[in-house]
Amino acid sequence: MAAPKADTVFKTQDNDGGVSSIMSLPVRAKDLATLLGGELVGNPDVPLSTLGSVEDGSPETLTFIRSSNYAKFWADSACGCALVTQDIEVPGHNQDTRALIFVKDADEAMVMVLEAVNPKRARPEPGIHSSAVIDPDAKIDPSAAIGPGCTIGAGTSIGAGVVLMPNITIGINASIGKKTILEPGVVIEDRCIIGDRCHIGANCVIGADGFGYLPANELRPSVKVPQIGIVELGNDIELGACVTIDRAKFGATTIGDRTKIDNQVHVAHNCVVGTDTLIAGRTTLGGSVVIGDFAMIGGAAVLNDQSVVGKHAKVAGGAVVLEKVPDGETYVGTPAMPARQALLNYSAFRDLASFVRKVEKRLKKLESE
Amino acid sequence: MAAPKADTVFKTQDNDGGVSSIMSLPVRAKDLATLLGGELVGNPDVPLSTLGSVEDGSPETLTFIRSSNYAKFWADSACGCALVTQDIEVPGHNQDTRALIFVKDADEAMVMVLEAVNPKRARPEPGIHSSAVIDPDAKIDPSAAIGPGCTIGAGTSIGAGVVLMPNITIGINASIGKKTILEPGVVIEDRCIIGDRCHIGANCVIGADGFGYLPANELRPSVKVPQIGIVELGNDIELGACVTIDRAKFGATTIGDRTKIDNQVHVAHNCVVGTDTLIAGRTTLGGSVVIGDFAMIGGAAVLNDQSVVGKHAKVAGGAVVLEKVPDGETYVGTPAMPARQALLNYSAFRDLASFVRKVEKRLKKLESE
Amino acid sequence: MAAPKADTVFKTQDNDGGVSSIMSLPVRAKDLATLLGGELVGNPDVPLSTLGSVEDGSPETLTFIRSSNYAKFWADSACGCALVTQDIEVPGHNQDTRALIFVKDADEAMVMVLEAVNPKRARPEPGIHSSAVIDPDAKIDPSAAIGPGCTIGAGTSIGAGVVLMPNITIGINASIGKKTILEPGVVIEDRCIIGDRCHIGANCVIGADGFGYLPANELRPSVKVPQIGIVELGNDIELGACVTIDRAKFGATTIGDRTKIDNQVHVAHNCVVGTDTLIAGRTTLGGSVVIGDFAMIGGAAVLNDQSVVGKHAKVAGGAVVLEKVPDGETYVGTPAMPARQALLNYSAFRDLASFVRKVEKRLKKLESE
Repeated sequence: MAAPKADTVFKTQDNDGGVSSIMSLPVRAKDLATLLGGELVGNPDVPLSTLGSVEDGSPETLTFIRSSNYAKFWADSACGCALVTQDIEVPGHNQDTRALIFVKDADEAMVMVLEAVNPKRARPEPGIHSSAVIDPDAKIDPSAAIGPGCTIGAGTSIGAGVVLMPNITIGINASIGKKTILEPGVVIEDRCIIGDRCHIGANCVIGADGFGYLPANELRPSVKVPQIGIVELGNDIELGACVTIDRAKFGATTIGDRTKIDNQVHVAHNCVVGTDTLIAGRTTLGGSVVIGDFAMIGGAAVLNDQSVVGKHAKVAGGAVVLEKVPDGETYVGTPAMPARQALLNYSAFRDLASFVRKVEKRLKKLESE
Repeated sequence: MAAPKADTVFKTQDNDGGVSSIMSLPVRAKDLATLLGGELVGNPDVPLSTLGSVEDGSPETLTFIRSSNYAKFWADSACGCALVTQDIEVPGHNQDTRALIFVKDADEAMVMVLEAVNPKRARPEPGIHSSAVIDPDAKIDPSAAIGPGCTIGAGTSIGAGVVLMPNITIGINASIGKKTILEPGVVIEDRCIIGDRCHIGANCVIGADGFGYLPANELRPSVKVPQIGIVELGNDIELGACVTIDRAKFGATTIGDRTKIDNQVHVAHNCVVGTDTLIAGRTTLGGSVVIGDFAMIGGAAVLNDQSVVGKHAKVAGGAVVLEKVPDGETYVGTPAMPARQALLNYSAFRDLASFVRKVEKRLKKLESE
Repeated sequence: MAAPKADTVFKTQDNDGGVSSIMSLPVRAKDLATLLGGELVGNPDVPLSTLGSVEDGSPETLTFIRSSNYAKFWADSACGCALVTQDIEVPGHNQDTRALIFVKDADEAMVMVLEAVNPKRARPEPGIHSSAVIDPDAKIDPSAAIGPGCTIGAGTSIGAGVVLMPNITIGINASIGKKTILEPGVVIEDRCIIGDRCHIGANCVIGADGFGYLPANELRPSVKVPQIGIVELGNDIELGACVTIDRAKFGATTIGDRTKIDNQVHVAHNCVVGTDTLIAGRTTLGGSVVIGDFAMIGGAAVLNDQSVVGKHAKVAGGAVVLEKVPDGETYVGTPAMPARQALLNYSAFRDLASFVRKVEKRLKKLESE
């Protein structure tokens, strides 16, 4: 199943069949309205060359109005055009010189615009670069693109439309699902499984050994606990740069479909992360952490070993979860506690020294009476 | 001292002479008993195909019982076999259908089992891959395996049985001790010394400059303080993925023998880490931190510049150590303090706002009387 | 504009025209005095082979005395020579066996000494290594050195004197300014701009997508917000190892001239970091954080999304900034607050449980009277 040799680099292939680069800035308001299927009110010929917020911006800026909070800035805004969620009233609109485009959801419309003007990314062409080192027992789909300097071990399968950017290493008996993109320097260790349409950021390491040791005692030094499990990623997952996900002691460390994980997050062995969760940058998941579907975890949070975050739960940035966040709740702080309680306690903490001093004084006065 | 050319990839060599893959699942209880030198009580032919906890598991699950806390679950457990620390009584054992294997230490026996069934890892064959770029003045032991895309500078020596996975860069005048394994993408900068039998995780960076600057003043911008020292790792050290250890300003940043460091830990310049310590994921060591032998540091902890953690001391996950943790003590929290004190204080903190409100009310009442 | 082919590795080029390696240890005190233009008082022939602090050290140790706090240790110090900031009085100096060198600023003089004895780093020779893969539409200055295993995309320009260590990937339409050095494994994604004389640490990732999603709702899963902006680094910037800087949603994530960023720092999309700032290891910048010129941020700090750190402001290590640090102020703690307030509050926190218990007791006593 040899793929064609391909020695060109980076041809801005459109490997994901997306809508990138179907437009380029500047663009007229009327063309945006057509793209979005929105209703244009105002000057159809406003030229738009940048995107910005309603409070900043120039006459060539496209902005968006998702609520009446934003709408009230429109009259005094310099922006030439806004995408507006339908049914929002926008006071002070000058139809001669400016344009409003009413759409079902301004946020989603902005995403469509960004996608349309998004420059295509550099991707190697389908085929295997001559400098890649592929074991003869690896199975590479002919439509996959394997960039320079990649190494792929025996028994590994690479699906249709997969893109491997340069200098990626994939061990033996691993599997990469179709249309998944791996950025440069990614390491996928033996037997790990990556689903379809995933995007793995540069220099991520998937499948390093979990951190498991029997601690040292009087008789012997610490003993490594072999980590014989794997990592299994579902479909449509995105990992930022330098994410590390460790293989399980046995069984699998798993990440559910459609979950998105930001840069430098560490997922320890045997974690089970649900579907549709969002985990922001530099968060730490200890061993065997369980996160439910649709959870949202802020940046630089710490989830203690064995802690549990429920479905639809939220954890604030920087929080330290010791044990459990119930389904649907929002936890904040160190140790993490319900948001309202945390805000009150941290507010009290800001005045703690002063409170202690005053209480001391008042108690002494009362005691001396 | 030219090593043989070796253009094959990943042949699951057993470079460390270990016992990996001497068994494969499923395995019979009696074969396990033989491997472990344990005493089998029950059905010798129970087939075992997975490992699991005594509370979960199926008739083909091997579990382990290290204390009477676990033993009490055995009667109702579905697991087919358990490794039991000798002298523990296990009530409700059905000898016809299930098996117990009594061993000296169930934890250590489980490690032996995991090791025996651990699939061998992909390793390049001894020799130098044709795509590796080796300075003629580097000394490569003929038994070392240098994978594709590696670069090794002049004056560097690579010991016997060393394994370099793909795309590793080693600078000039560095040294890698015998049987050390470097995972893909590792960078070892000039003059750094790595001991014997170490395991360096993927994308680790050893020997980047320490972060040293004379701060800017009115007369000039900040000035870089040259970092002319090195990093020196002892023997039998393991580093997880994406660990960074900076070179010293002068002298050496050192890590003692048998110390294990988890993913994404950062060790700043001039740290001195003792032997046999365990440092969990994403912990930060500031400049010139000193950690004693046999210390244990939890995940995402922060050790302030110049702070000291004593021998056999423990630091909890997420703790922020400002100055010192005495020998043998356990510190918790921000700022880190003795564990009991921290637990009491954090417990009080959870009710701080409510406490402030109530005290205020009671004081007012007393003052108005 | 083809550069010469260069197949040698690591020739300790002096690509930055610096003064490295103009001296080597040991060195005589008089030679140091000449190098520094300082005034020598004492024995000019003291041989110096190491650097150390005034309290430790041997007769061959060079130390430095930047204040009278250090000067008072001189009489009993074993060090053979000290650099002394002029006008500091050093009691107990034995001129027969030891040497003092008076200079304008002992810290800056020590930097000069370190620079002079700093061994030159391994750098590839100018030219393009035969294993590098360069798009024919990339513009590579002939004086640039492109190491083994590098890949450079179409439309990218590489300036004069640039050094690319091995296994670097640069996307399309990017730009690297003159004399910038990229350490091994760096990834610069499409369209990002790096200024002149920057130093980018090993395995850094510049230009990964920002973490932007419309959260999931009842009708659809989360939606990726395309990140169409770039990263723009000014001149004379240093990044440690494994730093990640994400591209902007639109516009640019920017880092100002002369800013220094330590290992494993994460800079999220749309941050604006000023000039001359110092950001220590493993700090997290959330989305759209703004940092003013000359700010100093300690290690493992967390700057919340949209938070602002003023000019000349300082943030302590481990602090969590929720909203704002005013110009020139120093903030400490979680949540970050003015340093004095934080120190008092954390001091009170150390005794919180005890305080609660005692207040409770005293209130009860008063209430029962």
